[in-house]
Amino acid sequence: MADSSAWLLLCRTVRFGDTDAAGVMHFQQLLRWCHEAYEESLERFGLAAADVFPRPGHAPAVALPIVHCSADFLAPLACGDPLAIQLEPQRLDPGAFEVRYSFQSGDRSVALGLTRHLAISAGSRQRCPLPEPINRWLEASSLGQGIQPL
Amino acid sequence: MADSSAWLLLCRTVRFGDTDAAGVMHFQQLLRWCHEAYEESLERFGLAAADVFPRPGHAPAVALPIVHCSADFLAPLACGDPLAIQLEPQRLDPGAFEVRYSFQSGDRSVALGLTRHLAISAGSRQRCPLPEPINRWLEASSLGQGIQPL
Amino acid sequence: MADSSAWLLLCRTVRFGDTDAAGVMHFQQLLRWCHEAYEESLERFGLAAADVFPRPGHAPAVALPIVHCSADFLAPLACGDPLAIQLEPQRLDPGAFEVRYSFQSGDRSVALGLTRHLAISAGSRQRCPLPEPINRWLEASSLGQGIQPL
Amino acid sequence: MADSSAWLLLCRTVRFGDTDAAGVMHFQQLLRWCHEAYEESLERFGLAAADVFPRPGHAPAVALPIVHCSADFLAPLACGDPLAIQLEPQRLDPGAFEVRYSFQSGDRSVALGLTRHLAISAGSRQRCPLPEPINRWLEASSLGQGIQPL
Repeated sequence: MADSSAWLLLCRTVRFGDTDAAGVMHFQQLLRWCHEAYEESLERFGLAAADVFPRPGHAPAVALPIVHCSADFLAPLACGDPLAIQLEPQRLDPGAFEVRYSFQSGDRSVALGLTRHLAISAGSRQRCPLPEPINRWLEASSLGQGIQPL
Repeated sequence: MADSSAWLLLCRTVRFGDTDAAGVMHFQQLLRWCHEAYEESLERFGLAAADVFPRPGHAPAVALPIVHCSADFLAPLACGDPLAIQLEPQRLDPGAFEVRYSFQSGDRSVALGLTRHLAISAGSRQRCPLPEPINRWLEASSLGQGIQPL
Repeated sequence: MADSSAWLLLCRTVRFGDTDAAGVMHFQQLLRWCHEAYEESLERFGLAAADVFPRPGHAPAVALPIVHCSADFLAPLACGDPLAIQLEPQRLDPGAFEVRYSFQSGDRSVALGLTRHLAISAGSRQRCPLPEPINRWLEASSLGQGIQPL
Repeated sequence: MADSSAWLLLCRTVRFGDTDAAGVMHFQQLLRWCHEAYEESLERFGLAAADVFPRPGHAPAVALPIVHCSADFLAPLACGDPLAIQLEPQRLDPGAFEVRYSFQSGDRSVALGLTRHLAISAGSRQRCPLPEPINRWLEASSLGQGIQPL
């Protein structure tokens, strides 16, 4: 089995446009980084964007809207700071999952993020089971994180 | 006829999240302000957003993608600065128009913007005539600005 | 005393750039709306942006970084949807406050937001008391909301 | 001499939050991508962000505000589309430069961008010569692009 660090540990750099006049990252950008890390994780795991996200003329049968998000800011981040982002995806029930994001810069823990997603049928907007590709990603991710029993 | 200043002269304030670590507005935000001013202008003129922009389950027959944009930055803008935005919409041909945006803060001219839009059939993505509501807005706007001949 | 609804009940419209390819508001924009509502509330209450937010060549002695934020999404929002935003600011201790945001569209409750702010000395980055203008806004806001005892 | 493709040819992927309800990239995001590509190019060339961009407690002596930008949109971009971004930096005079950005997706040319930057003294905000690190990047970049005559 592939090492889950290949798709659950990602990198980016704080960019100038992410900062505000206080000189540091503007809080709202962290949620953007979370979602982009989630997308990059699916991509590295091997899922096509079209399997999960709508494209012109093609919407997946199941949409995964975010119903809750949160973030904690532990240290200021400046332009050029490197970030390592660790993802912990977890299924909550057959039709919902959440992703926890831990941001490190150097050896400092600098921020935490959370997004919670619900599966709904794109047509009826009623709750439905998670799509199969997302289930595969959730399962492989939890295996990679678990303590293996003897 | 209604006074076109009601829909072609708009106001907003520079917000903290619009700035970057240089202490002033980050350049890219100006294009966002332009598009939001264009939308507010259509709204004040009396057009429903659904007549021009896609909503879930309803896409207008004609899409108006931006094919070109530009901006000139004449003075730095800080958080809290008030802005007056003057729009000059102009039809370029039966299937295209552009909008010029002049930003004033107090009595200083601080920035200029431009967006150029092409009408395409939402289905075929082929060029087509501008939709009727946009034509009405363009005509009413040009009347308000024109020098009246004797 | 002025009616607190003048500075605690604000309006905006969902704009095209706030949406994503699912056709509805992209989750992260809600946090931007929260912060812009907070700034507009201070402005309507009568505080100058320069008293609270850094401007080039002038940083207030006390910074108010966000240490936590969250959002709950109750209904999808489409381009053109009108929003009413009710703010509930609350002091947590002499050096911290939070703001709760309730978003309504028509008579539907569509989203909730929360930002939590800590006062720190801009120089030392150590915790310090809230600045006086923010205290005035917090007190006037809580008066407006409280149930008056007999 | 190092191959300039190492710092002038960059990659990214269109993310869900970059799209709007028309299903494709929202125009304004392209300017963000341009600036992030410019920053990544400087970083890959070996410049520290702190040499060029302000950080808390440290502003470079010379600021490089954007005075003009433009973009041309040649084809729609959907979530998940891979992008290759080619940068062409060029000095305009001793105190100004511009960067041209060409976006390819697969073998299609999909967009063009341009940012024009002026050197100003951070203190006086008067025009001044470009800082030495930027000059090195401009020179190495132009060498890498030219065909050297015998």
